[in-house]
Amino acid sequence: MNSCSLANRTGEAAYTCGVRDKRANQGKTRGAEAGEDALLRKIKDAAGGGDTHSGIRLGVGDDAASWRPRSGFETILTCDWFLEGSHFLRDVHPSDAIGWKCLARAASDVAAMGGKPRCFLLSLALPESCAGEWLSGFLGGLKRASRKLGCVLAGGDTTRRREILVNVTVIGEVRKGRAVLRSGARPGDRIFVSGKLGEAELGLNLIRRGERGGRQLSRMTQRHLYPEPRLALGQWLGEKRIATAMMDLSDGLSSDLARLCGASGVGARVLSGKIPMASNDFSKKFSAAERLRAGLHGGDDYELLFCVAKSDAAKIAGKFLGIELTEIGEITLGHKVKIFEPSGESRELTAEGWDPFRK
Amino acid sequence: MNSCSLANRTGEAAYTCGVRDKRANQGKTRGAEAGEDALLRKIKDAAGGGDTHSGIRLGVGDDAASWRPRSGFETILTCDWFLEGSHFLRDVHPSDAIGWKCLARAASDVAAMGGKPRCFLLSLALPESCAGEWLSGFLGGLKRASRKLGCVLAGGDTTRRREILVNVTVIGEVRKGRAVLRSGARPGDRIFVSGKLGEAELGLNLIRRGERGGRQLSRMTQRHLYPEPRLALGQWLGEKRIATAMMDLSDGLSSDLARLCGASGVGARVLSGKIPMASNDFSKKFSAAERLRAGLHGGDDYELLFCVAKSDAAKIAGKFLGIELTEIGEITLGHKVKIFEPSGESRELTAEGWDPFRK
Repeated sequence: MNSCSLANRTGEAAYTCGVRDKRANQGKTRGAEAGEDALLRKIKDAAGGGDTHSGIRLGVGDDAASWRPRSGFETILTCDWFLEGSHFLRDVHPSDAIGWKCLARAASDVAAMGGKPRCFLLSLALPESCAGEWLSGFLGGLKRASRKLGCVLAGGDTTRRREILVNVTVIGEVRKGRAVLRSGARPGDRIFVSGKLGEAELGLNLIRRGERGGRQLSRMTQRHLYPEPRLALGQWLGEKRIATAMMDLSDGLSSDLARLCGASGVGARVLSGKIPMASNDFSKKFSAAERLRAGLHGGDDYELLFCVAKSDAAKIAGKFLGIELTEIGEITLGHKVKIFEPSGESRELTAEGWDPFRK
Repeated sequence: MNSCSLANRTGEAAYTCGVRDKRANQGKTRGAEAGEDALLRKIKDAAGGGDTHSGIRLGVGDDAASWRPRSGFETILTCDWFLEGSHFLRDVHPSDAIGWKCLARAASDVAAMGGKPRCFLLSLALPESCAGEWLSGFLGGLKRASRKLGCVLAGGDTTRRREILVNVTVIGEVRKGRAVLRSGARPGDRIFVSGKLGEAELGLNLIRRGERGGRQLSRMTQRHLYPEPRLALGQWLGEKRIATAMMDLSDGLSSDLARLCGASGVGARVLSGKIPMASNDFSKKFSAAERLRAGLHGGDDYELLFCVAKSDAAKIAGKFLGIELTEIGEITLGHKVKIFEPSGESRELTAEGWDPFRK
């Protein structure tokens, strides 16, 4: 459906047989209707859709997709790996959740710029054994995310592989000059986060323990399986020019705040007592220390981390469309990120969120 | 560098340790400077570049890239897998060639629409053992392709993985209404191809046999390792409204022509004697039958396949900027693709090009 006809454009066969000799479909259908093209059709039927508002002029089925950007807007581009064994496990994560999450997490990068997602490209590699039920579940979740986020399938690429590999590119828009960067934070700015931090991490923990039941537990596992990018909040903060800097929390507050500070050339002071941890009302599964640790270093929340000039801080009410907004500290001179305990004690907040290249 | 900070945004650690406990870099550097961020910097230094003509306003290093499309143009979007074991072999293909080809083949989809590539996103997963010399070679090839194709790095995503996985998204532009689709071929149109067909396939064959020497051989192996997308030709055919339908030849003529005919709802008649096969002047490595077979079914050539109304066929000279253009047949009513031997005998041309999902 690529766009490049969702075609693996060469390769694999080349290594199994100089010139290809795989002809199972001969006489039955034309090549154009067989194998990969059939898969392509399935994806297109399930998730494609010429949404007339998306700007897509030509989606799945040609060499590339064609898209008409609106005048007065910049285009936002982002892509995200979502790989079996690295980001999900085939026997643990429902395929429906994998379909939802691969799009939601890429769209979260657009939210972090204050933008609106418009369309996406899906690159999918999967074993033949997954082309039936697993794929249907995956496409179901993907379609729900696509509708919820207003982001339509424009094209992609498929191939066969032992493991399931997903890569999603999201194309979004933001009004010219309104994109919110990581680099705009200034000393004195107040630091805010949306939602609760660490719930996705604890939810994963529960899933791994085989515990999914109960209202609070289910909320946390949902946060891990079906994250919701904070699109409306990001757009509001960008459109109104309220946020001076913004990013989404994907790798954990300690790592991501260090990145924002690095990009802005500033430091930060965070109040440990202000971190909006997962609440423990409904279960005593996790100690306060575990919840704080998840709040500081846990990944996968896809909440927004943003800075606001002191003079604008009052514009941030406690909630935005039902999502809690919490002031957790302020931007400082220097380059250190420090965390202060309620006792007044402070220490450097080391980046302990996820980094696939760190040992 | 994504754009999403080339960040693996979560995941892997989650499966090795609930909340992350990987702290090799503590006390040495801030997390923001370690591991993945260091890799990111390396990629950005080697391949990034704020080319002021690219339209990139904000590249590598924020949540997403921001790009200003030119008014009067549509955006072209395409993505391509390039996977170790499927599309290349680590011990056979130089990393420089992998860097070149991953971008060249994705840009070829933009050529096939008559468009001009502008920028790209790189998703790269690789083992730690490849983060040194292998990566330098890869980035060298990528940078050369980037300059040659006028397509700059805008962002991407990195993660660690046992195998090398590459996915490239290319963003291009085409003047409004000038994109050339697969679906515009009409009965009577003449069918053309650029260049020689099957050379990349035969080149791979030589590489596998361990034979790279000799002028003609080297030309064929180069075609496999460093394909050149036909950008200027594609743009000329689109801009002048000469081509009624077009696509690039990535999976082999027999498969790709069937796709073009399927999209256009037509059939085709191809003359076997007209296929521009690899010449055998410099070596007798391949029989005429082998060369014809490679010309019909071999993949990876990235030449253009295009149709021209009979009345416009005279506009196609024998060469365009040194690239041979050959009329190989015509579009017919019906849905069959037939190949005619010089003897007058004909048979259906079955799609035997590469399809990763066919057994």
